[in-house]
Amino acid sequence: RISWISDIIVVVSPENIETMKTIIEKYGHKRVTVVEGGLTRHRSIFNGLKIFAENEFSSHLLQKPEVVVIHDAVRPFVEEDIVSKVVMAAKEHGAAGAIRPLVSTVIASAADGCLDHSLERARYRASEMPQAFLFDIIYEAYQQCTDYDLDYGTECLHLALKYCKTNAKLVEGTADLWKVTYKRDLYAAESIVKDNLSQQVCVITNGKESIAQVGFLLPESLKNQIKVEAISVSLSKNDSRLQNIISGQCYNFVCVNDKRCAIQEIQELVDMLEKSNIPLLCPVVLISVHLDISENNSFSIGMEDLTTIKKFARETKKKNILVYGLLIQCK
Amino acid sequence: RISWISDIIVVVSPENIETMKTIIEKYGHKRVTVVEGGLTRHRSIFNGLKIFAENEFSSHLLQKPEVVVIHDAVRPFVEEDIVSKVVMAAKEHGAAGAIRPLVSTVIASAADGCLDHSLERARYRASEMPQAFLFDIIYEAYQQCTDYDLDYGTECLHLALKYCKTNAKLVEGTADLWKVTYKRDLYAAESIVKDNLSQQVCVITNGKESIAQVGFLLPESLKNQIKVEAISVSLSKNDSRLQNIISGQCYNFVCVNDKRCAIQEIQELVDMLEKSNIPLLCPVVLISVHLDISENNSFSIGMEDLTTIKKFARETKKKNILVYGLLIQCK
Repeated sequence: RISWISDIIVVVSPENIETMKTIIEKYGHKRVTVVEGGLTRHRSIFNGLKIFAENEFSSHLLQKPEVVVIHDAVRPFVEEDIVSKVVMAAKEHGAAGAIRPLVSTVIASAADGCLDHSLERARYRASEMPQAFLFDIIYEAYQQCTDYDLDYGTECLHLALKYCKTNAKLVEGTADLWKVTYKRDLYAAESIVKDNLSQQVCVITNGKESIAQVGFLLPESLKNQIKVEAISVSLSKNDSRLQNIISGQCYNFVCVNDKRCAIQEIQELVDMLEKSNIPLLCPVVLISVHLDISENNSFSIGMEDLTTIKKFARETKKKNILVYGLLIQCK
Repeated sequence: RISWISDIIVVVSPENIETMKTIIEKYGHKRVTVVEGGLTRHRSIFNGLKIFAENEFSSHLLQKPEVVVIHDAVRPFVEEDIVSKVVMAAKEHGAAGAIRPLVSTVIASAADGCLDHSLERARYRASEMPQAFLFDIIYEAYQQCTDYDLDYGTECLHLALKYCKTNAKLVEGTADLWKVTYKRDLYAAESIVKDNLSQQVCVITNGKESIAQVGFLLPESLKNQIKVEAISVSLSKNDSRLQNIISGQCYNFVCVNDKRCAIQEIQELVDMLEKSNIPLLCPVVLISVHLDISENNSFSIGMEDLTTIKKFARETKKKNILVYGLLIQCK
């Protein structure tokens, strides 16, 4: 996703390495090397760094980078902007990390389980990820740190300060950098993904007079809730407007037609989506609306069409393209 | 909800006082007094406490309590158990508050925006709510504290320590005590409410042979996902089993019947729900399933019934009872 990152090291616990490799292959991720994690956070990060420096840990030694970014998988909503900011700050200061204001006051407890003192909230920050370091600094810090650090420490910025006298630059991050920790955070994450996917819908009609009104009224009624692109095009032709909409990260399509079975048109759209370079990590939703305005429409024929679409949908689902059929009969 | 709490003081900003009073009236909340808030957190809490001690702030002076609990509205999922624990601890220690482990490391920044030092995460805790105090201690603390405290402070436990030398007892709280702060937290909160409401469903059949099979098969297929109570009862009789299920906080009902229009039965159930003392803050879902197994069933008659139920549902929705009609025709 971020073109100026040359290598991505994913540190995974031994039992999940195969799953991770399957994911990387399935979604065609590039520039990724999988490394076996350690028993603690710091041991895992250290393993990830070694691949750039120690021959024995990799069959093909990766080129040592000037700056290395450390990030957690539990913070899935990291934008290029903050990664870029911490990298630039690390280049200048040797180390940098994203921070957020504290949501609750932090207190120190005494041995008896009572309040010892509370910290003035404004003077402190929550240390988040991503963090970036000059490779030589963070690698030096990990080489010098003690077993106690490796087993009980959690903060990379602390290691850089303690072992390399590098005071990290702190960079204000966005709220979306929070750590997915509890079950409720999964719901919150799901809502953010859904929000992002439902920004835009493309309504496609085939240009016939009989459905022109739908092609006009549907976008009209949707446009207060969502960004709508409406185009009238034959899907069998390679239309450049439609290609532009697809590469503009549109994930929702409504195709309205009046033909009995629209499988062929849907197939054309699926082909275009696959050929485009949009990542199919997030599902594409494709609704085929069959508007039956003939005099002698039959319920059973309509149901047959839906069964065909259902079968087709089962296949496209494997590619993360969700196809739905909607039959509207009007006499 | 918690019977041993004698008064609830809700501190609200001036512009929201009328809205709050409407809410209290609508849901029939008892023991509640609304107080106007101040410009800062501490000024608002102080206003809330004054109602127990200073005649001028209330037309009817409330009886001064031994222990007062301070809580935030942004933490809606507070259980009786933690309230009880902080109250008991406050009785013994003078002050007590809920705490949670820190999710991120806390760091102190220097004036130049660089890292000054990081705190050892295990030694610190996030201070959450609820907190409880002997009334005399917290009131004394607020009376003594400076304008600077009132304007910039955020931590009540700190005031009790600073002005009354009271080291609060810290009580480990549950994860649900988190502060609803960002938009994503609203989604998380919604998911928790939905989880709680979908713990149990009651399937009601009227005892007739024709639908006995549904009354058996539906609970069977649901029971892997949700706690199911299935009873066969005529709703026109005041059945004590059904009353027990209702007072056991069941919020979901499916009534299966084979009569043409089941409005009367649904009405009986709505009456029972209203007469019961279960709080209708969360919506009750009531699905009336009309199973039409007659030889000469007609689609249009079925639709008429659904229209009747739709009208009825519009009325019950005002009472937070959501009625749905489902028509199943089988020849």
